[in-house]
Amino acid sequence: MEFYSSHITNLVEQLSRLPGIGVKSAQRLAFYILNMTEDQTIALAEAITSAKKNVHYCKECYTYTDGELCPVCSSPQRNHKQIMVVENPRDLAAYEKTGKYDGVYHVLHGAISPMAGIGPQDIKLAELMTRLQGDISEVIVATNKNLEGDTTATYISKLVKPLGIRVSRIASGVPAGGDLEYIDEVTLYRALEGRTDM
Amino acid sequence: MEFYSSHITNLVEQLSRLPGIGVKSAQRLAFYILNMTEDQTIALAEAITSAKKNVHYCKECYTYTDGELCPVCSSPQRNHKQIMVVENPRDLAAYEKTGKYDGVYHVLHGAISPMAGIGPQDIKLAELMTRLQGDISEVIVATNKNLEGDTTATYISKLVKPLGIRVSRIASGVPAGGDLEYIDEVTLYRALEGRTDM
Repeated sequence: MEFYSSHITNLVEQLSRLPGIGVKSAQRLAFYILNMTEDQTIALAEAITSAKKNVHYCKECYTYTDGELCPVCSSPQRNHKQIMVVENPRDLAAYEKTGKYDGVYHVLHGAISPMAGIGPQDIKLAELMTRLQGDISEVIVATNKNLEGDTTATYISKLVKPLGIRVSRIASGVPAGGDLEYIDEVTLYRALEGRTDM
Repeated sequence: MEFYSSHITNLVEQLSRLPGIGVKSAQRLAFYILNMTEDQTIALAEAITSAKKNVHYCKECYTYTDGELCPVCSSPQRNHKQIMVVENPRDLAAYEKTGKYDGVYHVLHGAISPMAGIGPQDIKLAELMTRLQGDISEVIVATNKNLEGDTTATYISKLVKPLGIRVSRIASGVPAGGDLEYIDEVTLYRALEGRTDM
């Protein structure tokens, strides 16, 4: 890419670091960006830096928010005794879209994966246990239906059951191996309705 | 996406305006960006704005450059009497990678496409004709081997031939319907070697 400009080379390099974007895609994006108006490129750049600057974890559930608490955790309309445990904020968003869940969430930011060297201490599990010292009636484990998600669910179940709190797992309406965020809303809703005790 | 933060919503919206990036991909990218360090996000944002700010057309061939002339046009090692006409800077880069072409280029920034409402006046054709007033021995038309590229090639041939300048078209080593930028270097080289007069 040195045929034109070090600025383009640098832009392509920066873009190709993003997930799912190879060198060819990065080149396409770079040339597209060069064809945008200057205002548009500034808006894009500012969206990146200001999101990074202003967005942090919700103090309660660890999803992304720009306040101290996320809208779900700060809502008096939600049932704060029911906690749905998800792997990441995208899964939370997927369940929020169903409009059928009125409890709160806990975002683990990952799942236990011995293969990838991710243990219980690498995800927000201690933070979940701290929350369970409050008045909690149920923990719904909505981790993905794959090896890591199931391992994490079993681990959580073993930790939570001794506390006398109901632990449930969303039903297998979610297909095996499926990533929550790509599932349609009806399926997600049915999986919630059909949840079974663990 | 209003479950977390307007900053995330805005970032997702900005990213999903880029070509080939849908809402799901934009969400993935946004969360990836949030997980980057602040320095990394600043580097990405600055790459975008500084490329847009510093990169412009080469005064001679209209590829992207940050100088007045691109490295090819300013090189005394290149044959400035031989001009290869390409649709965009990515195609120029593809031919430069072969290392087998020592002439210069002319970047049209598009191709004639009556279907898309793109006429000869919408691409850098007048600029090519201006260059041909100098001492030029050959115009090699390396537009894509599809309807628009062939139409453009024929159009250029009709304009250039009356000037007594040789006009050639790269050989059909490039597969029909193929985009130059995805072709391997050997095929590109063979297409150049096998070029025929128009």
